[in-house]
Amino acid sequence: MNIVLLNPEIHVNTGNIGRTCVLTNTKLHLIKPLGFELGDKKIKRAGLDYWKDVQLFVWESLEDFWSKNIEGNDSAKIYMATTKTKQKYTDVKFQKDDYIMFGPESRGIPEDFLNAHKEKNITIPMLPIGRSLNLSNAVAIILYEALKQVNFEFE
Amino acid sequence: MNIVLLNPEIHVNTGNIGRTCVLTNTKLHLIKPLGFELGDKKIKRAGLDYWKDVQLFVWESLEDFWSKNIEGNDSAKIYMATTKTKQKYTDVKFQKDDYIMFGPESRGIPEDFLNAHKEKNITIPMLPIGRSLNLSNAVAIILYEALKQVNFEFE
Repeated sequence: MNIVLLNPEIHVNTGNIGRTCVLTNTKLHLIKPLGFELGDKKIKRAGLDYWKDVQLFVWESLEDFWSKNIEGNDSAKIYMATTKTKQKYTDVKFQKDDYIMFGPESRGIPEDFLNAHKEKNITIPMLPIGRSLNLSNAVAIILYEALKQVNFEFE
Repeated sequence: MNIVLLNPEIHVNTGNIGRTCVLTNTKLHLIKPLGFELGDKKIKRAGLDYWKDVQLFVWESLEDFWSKNIEGNDSAKIYMATTKTKQKYTDVKFQKDDYIMFGPESRGIPEDFLNAHKEKNITIPMLPIGRSLNLSNAVAIILYEALKQVNFEFE
């Protein structure tokens, strides 16, 4: 699997997500600009001794990521996590090399980008009380649903 | 659902878990001793403006929790998350009022207690590289599998 963080803002979340990725042999893509320095000690602390083992890919922009991973790659499917759809993350059929994208903590994925790929928008059901789940928790929930669907084959 | 944290050590994790609980109408049980003060600002920060809305129950000891929630309550089923079983969290059938227990971050649930309830031990598959998932991520993963099984009916 591939987790894609668009403009992540909080180093502790990215560190925790890196830890989850290492434990499941998942690639982690970060799309700049980031809200922190990649060398920040807080990332390593949240990622524990795992951070050095993260399969990390850093992209200069959304266009850079898209053109080198998704465009022209017929086998690459990308899903986008958002609160702005009714399609549940449990309603889609994940495959082993899929990409799952998450937006920045404070804003989510830009609406025009979501709208351009509506059938790929997925959401985690939660009570509509304003804010949403912590980013690293949202990643863990969707990633593990995807991994379950492929029988937890991390290889 | 009910999330039970036995002797949680790290306030940020408990704060994040509280946030997940509020968003899913889940009760949060904390069993003392805790590794932090409940009034700590860091809990509130991780729990955001949600912390005040957590359905929070604090118990003096494991015995206190057990005698008042599980013992003699035929409808209450409790599962225990651990790395020390082969039964996956996706292999059990959750019901709406189940309890899911997690141990302290550094040690997990004591082995003798796990062994006394072996058929209730559940685990999250991950690569065997020493440490395990962040506690708040582990809670999110299992809680959302349980919620999915009851069709995300938070009421």
